[in-house]
Amino acid sequence: MQIAIINDKILPYNDVGHEYLDRGLFFGDGVYEVIRSYNGRIFALDEHLERFSASMKAVEITKVDITQIRIKIIQAFEKANIPNAYIYFHITRGSGPRNHVCSDNLPPNFFLTVKELEDDTKVKTQGIGVITYPDQRWKRCDIKSLNLLPNVMARREAAKKGCEEAIFVNDDGIITEGAASAFFAIHEKKLQTSPLSENILPSITRKFVIKAAQNIGLGIIDKSLTPKQASVCDELFIAVTTKDIVPVVKFDDKPIGNGKPGKYTKALEAEFRKFTTA
Amino acid sequence: MQIAIINDKILPYNDVGHEYLDRGLFFGDGVYEVIRSYNGRIFALDEHLERFSASMKAVEITKVDITQIRIKIIQAFEKANIPNAYIYFHITRGSGPRNHVCSDNLPPNFFLTVKELEDDTKVKTQGIGVITYPDQRWKRCDIKSLNLLPNVMARREAAKKGCEEAIFVNDDGIITEGAASAFFAIHEKKLQTSPLSENILPSITRKFVIKAAQNIGLGIIDKSLTPKQASVCDELFIAVTTKDIVPVVKFDDKPIGNGKPGKYTKALEAEFRKFTTA
Repeated sequence: MQIAIINDKILPYNDVGHEYLDRGLFFGDGVYEVIRSYNGRIFALDEHLERFSASMKAVEITKVDITQIRIKIIQAFEKANIPNAYIYFHITRGSGPRNHVCSDNLPPNFFLTVKELEDDTKVKTQGIGVITYPDQRWKRCDIKSLNLLPNVMARREAAKKGCEEAIFVNDDGIITEGAASAFFAIHEKKLQTSPLSENILPSITRKFVIKAAQNIGLGIIDKSLTPKQASVCDELFIAVTTKDIVPVVKFDDKPIGNGKPGKYTKALEAEFRKFTTA
Repeated sequence: MQIAIINDKILPYNDVGHEYLDRGLFFGDGVYEVIRSYNGRIFALDEHLERFSASMKAVEITKVDITQIRIKIIQAFEKANIPNAYIYFHITRGSGPRNHVCSDNLPPNFFLTVKELEDDTKVKTQGIGVITYPDQRWKRCDIKSLNLLPNVMARREAAKKGCEEAIFVNDDGIITEGAASAFFAIHEKKLQTSPLSENILPSITRKFVIKAAQNIGLGIIDKSLTPKQASVCDELFIAVTTKDIVPVVKFDDKPIGNGKPGKYTKALEAEFRKFTTA
């Protein structure tokens, strides 16, 4: 008889719930998004759904109606009634016996949570420390997939060193992005960040940051930095959906500027806030 | 109130079972092994447990007693009473709210299945076709982790082309390994395969294949091949725990040798069988 063990429990294989046979678990065979709301309004929902569709397309998860996903998000968000909400959702290729190849008729699994987003004002007012870390990820980081072990390992290392984020540096010695954020530098009144490629996530916050930078009169440089270049910039920050702009005041133990959030970073935050309250 | 949706069901977040909050699902934050038995005896259990320990150590999943894992495997195998069994197991860093960083006190999740292994004699007697495919995986493929989306994508592409396996070719144009197998060539009485590195899995079957090759008097070349080199070799095969040695008779649509399993591959299979019946 076919058998399974779940933690300490032994049971017939046929009694294993399909949540344990999720391809998301066996292979990370799925894609996800994180969205937030500000004061009762979901921010950039269209952009996130568009990226989610692109991720699904890239990994060939088909037959998912994005309109139905949108309805579910709004339904859960309204039911939760949390003004500043953290909304996570993923879709996997489905559940079944563990085989790399499966039928395309497998029904995908959808999972979503709406939780309170704790706005961490301390990281925004005081800034954070980051470490650099080798970018060991796969070559399609433009797909927001569930294969995130290298990101977890990088963040663990950052935490061990008392830092909030790890900034990936690839084999060519250039910065790609943060383990769970986009990375930006400001120097001589210009904003610099990595160009979009298959190696980085097309960050939605990035798009709004660039718009904010243009609004306050910063030049834009669409070019990767080396850690050495970054470490001598006037200001650094990361951008991420859940926290928008977070100043980086320590880079591999070296203070940035005077070790406090810089004036342009603050100006960008103020400008960004206009988008979220518009 | 915090809310979740599981497929079409909306529920309070607090009612979500911890199997849905598995870090294995959110991040692929776990490692696995596949073992098989031949005629009622588990093959190479020690080697697999040793590799599993190495994978856990590499991703810093600690506090797991490997002796307990061994006991569970044997217990399930005996209970299943399946002579030729496919044994899969994984461990994840545990369940909890989705954060890249988590407490090291999280209890890991263990999952195991023992199923009937369908020995596919057709692939062994007739051989299989393979395609080459870009190696887009992360840089630590020596860790047997749950981050397997590139492997799934490669196998899907192989299946679309009527092939059984995809052989990864890296940016330097050299073959690393199969999407779920080790890759071997035989040419002029020498067996050639990629040297062990952080880019390939330390295959257990590989070890026994090399031993078998030495036993039948083949030379060993521990060096990667290019697809072009592979395509003109006398014989090709893949090796994988569940099927041991499988002849490759078609490589990117080009027949290998006379398009039938080669004599040394057959001799290796016979020699390998001695290990499994010893």
